Amino acid sequence: MEKDITIYDIAKDLGVSPTTVSRALNNHPAVKEKTKKKIFQAASDMGYQSNIFAANLRSKRTNNIGVIVPSLNSNFQASVLAGMEKVANEAGFNLVISQSLESSEKEIANTRSMFNSRIDGLLVSLASDAENLAHFEPFHKRGIPVIFYDRIANSDSSTGVTIDNIQAAQIATNHLIDQGCKKIVHVLGSTKVSVYADRLKGYKYAHIDRNIPFEQDQIIVLSDINEEAGENIVNQILKMDPLPDGIFVSNDACAASCMNHLKQRGIRIPEDMALVGFNNEVISRLVEPKITTINYPGFEMGEVAMKNLINHLDEPGNTTLHNTNKITLRSELLIRESSLKIKK
Amino acid sequence: MEKDITIYDIAKDLGVSPTTVSRALNNHPAVKEKTKKKIFQAASDMGYQSNIFAANLRSKRTNNIGVIVPSLNSNFQASVLAGMEKVANEAGFNLVISQSLESSEKEIANTRSMFNSRIDGLLVSLASDAENLAHFEPFHKRGIPVIFYDRIANSDSSTGVTIDNIQAAQIATNHLIDQGCKKIVHVLGSTKVSVYADRLKGYKYAHIDRNIPFEQDQIIVLSDINEEAGENIVNQILKMDPLPDGIFVSNDACAASCMNHLKQRGIRIPEDMALVGFNNEVISRLVEPKITTINYPGFEMGEVAMKNLINHLDEPGNTTLHNTNKITLRSELLIRESSLKIKK
Repeated sequence: MEKDITIYDIAKDLGVSPTTVSRALNNHPAVKEKTKKKIFQAASDMGYQSNIFAANLRSKRTNNIGVIVPSLNSNFQASVLAGMEKVANEAGFNLVISQSLESSEKEIANTRSMFNSRIDGLLVSLASDAENLAHFEPFHKRGIPVIFYDRIANSDSSTGVTIDNIQAAQIATNHLIDQGCKKIVHVLGSTKVSVYADRLKGYKYAHIDRNIPFEQDQIIVLSDINEEAGENIVNQILKMDPLPDGIFVSNDACAASCMNHLKQRGIRIPEDMALVGFNNEVISRLVEPKITTINYPGFEMGEVAMKNLINHLDEPGNTTLHNTNKITLRSELLIRESSLKIKK
Repeated sequence: MEKDITIYDIAKDLGVSPTTVSRALNNHPAVKEKTKKKIFQAASDMGYQSNIFAANLRSKRTNNIGVIVPSLNSNFQASVLAGMEKVANEAGFNLVISQSLESSEKEIANTRSMFNSRIDGLLVSLASDAENLAHFEPFHKRGIPVIFYDRIANSDSSTGVTIDNIQAAQIATNHLIDQGCKKIVHVLGSTKVSVYADRLKGYKYAHIDRNIPFEQDQIIVLSDINEEAGENIVNQILKMDPLPDGIFVSNDACAASCMNHLKQRGIRIPEDMALVGFNNEVISRLVEPKITTINYPGFEMGEVAMKNLINHLDEPGNTTLHNTNKITLRSELLIRESSLKIKK
């Protein structure tokens, strides 16, 4: 690797004083525009890197914000990241991203690596088997803000950005009940993940409020709730007696896959079974019939989480974040053909 | 923010010498396991950050690798990033990610910011309006490796990881010709993007090889080739006289959206029009009929690009990267119902 280019090299090259170069690069008014332009051009041509790195060491800021996601390979997380990056970029911060791959062990390792590389703040969507949050303690001790999003920590001392998953699932289930469903299956991921635990509550509350009994075997819990799970779920559903007449699946890709397998087995959607998904992924609008779903605003969630983090960094004395336990975004039920048993 | 914890603080707290603490943290064999454990625990409890930051300043390594993507909000880019992160994480590197949002101006700004924050290497998928590559010159000058992936630079001095898009599109078009299609429409994004320019070539070469004439108006170029474009494309297609009998769309989400709108307008797929997509996204398998597509290995592309970058960093004397112009991954045509006019 070549030697670092310094302001002295630029000064020598142009025959001006190092002070002039330094002033020009810092946009000092004492330097003429023409000289500034010449110096900027030379700095760029010679490959000068402003010494942000050393400056960071003094200011204790790296301008890097860490994000730990369960998996990058997810529509929902991709929209969240897009929202975060937009806000961070506009404010002059970079995103440093790692994935826990749903393993709390890897989450702990990633957390440690981010701590040691001195990120200014951390955004986390928890791994599905995260049982304890001790690995975030070092951040709290050093005053580095941590905000959870989507899969948030069930702890009073942390800040989380989420939607009201209980309410959303209750609305989805009520909608199926309104369509005349008497036996509704709920398909979800591990209840160690806050969002699934909450949706299951919503499903149950709707049944209790409307006085509809349900059995434990109507609740299908999977470790991976994705496209590939459809066949197994449908096998399980078709063994039920009597057959269910409604299905509420906790994400759209899995819902679409269930619908495909049900149709292959001769079940009509929504006539025989009404179907509701979750997330409003593109796929929910492109399958046939289109899937009724909950609009989960991923991009907006990313924006809100990042804005709150940066606001906190910009005003360290500000106690807003410490006093905020939960930020809840709006969500809504989008009614489409897959659940409309009662034609209007 | 609290004062930095030093090895002296840990030493004082435990009543051992600073040398012992330093040795323990560096896993020196002269320190007993029991003492090491005690020191590690104290370091963690007190919030000690190993001074990687200052060490980086000395070693000129940040262990950060920059990635510039056109948009984070894309299935394909999400799989690529997942592959990159896996390899980087295993090798002890972090990903620093930004999105150009298809603007070369933003790409230039992101590149500058990454250069100044001293990333060890850069992976780039070019913005659709990238016209020139001067913004990567400072990296070359400082010996910081840059690898392009998917949307690669058309330049001998750069290294790119891609599939053979010409060949893949030619295979896709040949398949439609084999199914008896006489008039095939090709829907693609801006030909400033290497992948679309190459696929268009493949479409044309297939026609020439098979002696099938085609008109310019069979080629529909869009600035955004996505789910929302389907309606407009279908309006354009249905105005053609005679109607086409084959459609080759350059990504699956857009292909699925076209199929939906065609079906709504009474066109049968594949009987009236055979359809082929690109990328093998989840959506291609969940719509009806399932979409014939090209399997584009995003995750593997991310792994290969990152592995090559890290190998280069680990052996700076190694000239493999400088001598490598292009790495081509395998792709394949996956034949499904959407294109099978001739039933077997």
